[in-house]
Amino acid sequence: MSPIDAKTSKGEETRAAILDAAIQQAGAEGFEALTIGSLASRIGMSKSGLFAHFGSKEELQVAALDEAARRFTESAFGPAMSKPRGLQRLTAVFENWLDWTTRAGLRGCPMMSASSEFDGRPGVMRDAIAGHMQRLNQAVIRNVQMAVESGELKPTIDAEQFAFELFGVIASFYRSRNLFQDDKAHQRALAAFSQLLAPHRVAPATPAPTSAPSDQTAATGD
Amino acid sequence: MSPIDAKTSKGEETRAAILDAAIQQAGAEGFEALTIGSLASRIGMSKSGLFAHFGSKEELQVAALDEAARRFTESAFGPAMSKPRGLQRLTAVFENWLDWTTRAGLRGCPMMSASSEFDGRPGVMRDAIAGHMQRLNQAVIRNVQMAVESGELKPTIDAEQFAFELFGVIASFYRSRNLFQDDKAHQRALAAFSQLLAPHRVAPATPAPTSAPSDQTAATGD
Repeated sequence: MSPIDAKTSKGEETRAAILDAAIQQAGAEGFEALTIGSLASRIGMSKSGLFAHFGSKEELQVAALDEAARRFTESAFGPAMSKPRGLQRLTAVFENWLDWTTRAGLRGCPMMSASSEFDGRPGVMRDAIAGHMQRLNQAVIRNVQMAVESGELKPTIDAEQFAFELFGVIASFYRSRNLFQDDKAHQRALAAFSQLLAPHRVAPATPAPTSAPSDQTAATGD
Repeated sequence: MSPIDAKTSKGEETRAAILDAAIQQAGAEGFEALTIGSLASRIGMSKSGLFAHFGSKEELQVAALDEAARRFTESAFGPAMSKPRGLQRLTAVFENWLDWTTRAGLRGCPMMSASSEFDGRPGVMRDAIAGHMQRLNQAVIRNVQMAVESGELKPTIDAEQFAFELFGVIASFYRSRNLFQDDKAHQRALAAFSQLLAPHRVAPATPAPTSAPSDQTAATGD
């Protein structure tokens, strides 16, 4: 490794550690509380040291948000890609979404906090959040469409409406789990997901499509 | 009016004006940003003047939250009380809930911001938010139960699950309206509410329940 590589790698490591602490703080206290000063004292670094990585509070907030979005995508969509396209993958995305903060060691979802903190405040944070949320919405819509293509959901489903409702289930799940500390939060979220899908499911075809039903009828007739 | 009443009334008026500004600020920027200093400069009052009304940042935050909850209840539940108990009242609560911030002249819902800001931070704010949200949940559950009692919803409905899902619709509505600035947000929320109710609605009875069905059968038989 050349000295330049070593230096870059060290700088990247520090930056990653800073962002990790930033996400923890934003997940627990929101982004408004995430300042160069508050983070510096949290991680025991000087404010000027932090400024060398992030030139402003806003730059730090956006970098933490982007990193949270990257981790979320990796946790919720990554493992789901091994599932076949369609209902299995859509279900996996939903289930991973429910427990991504737990697996990421976060107390709350930084993106959810950011969304309600900045939705009424024009600026780079609001634009960054809206961009991440829109991409997430599109990914959900695409997964619904794949479940239509696989013949598991009816083509009459309104994928955008479904994505709207699915987000609501997640938001309510966080309220129940984090605010109410309701043990049934996870169970309620799964039930809501099932109910959301129910009217759009294609009824499963008669047992095995390969064995012709006429043979069975004939056998019963014998 | 006695001088004492006049003094109290003046103090109450000032307090009400301060709380109004506090709710506006919290709705737009969240509660974390709501400090004695930021509010004082917003309303052109001295910090010591504000301290005379609210002894600490926390006291100010809780007072603003309580006032927001009072206004919400007044807006969403107040007018709904003139509707008959059951589906009509439940629907009115939902529809009023959707536009209460607009009627209150707020950009965002202070309670929603507060919830995602404080759900992971034990303390008086978290307790106050959880209390308000639990009471709201109970009020929704009670309205669902009344729609069962009125014979409009099936007794098999899980009222707690319904309240869980209803809150999600509202949360998603705010994301669509405030973050995505989606013109269809309101329409999507109404559609989600309809879909939520659909499996639980009791099919409307045959036209007039006062004319005995046996008479009709006899008439058809003639």
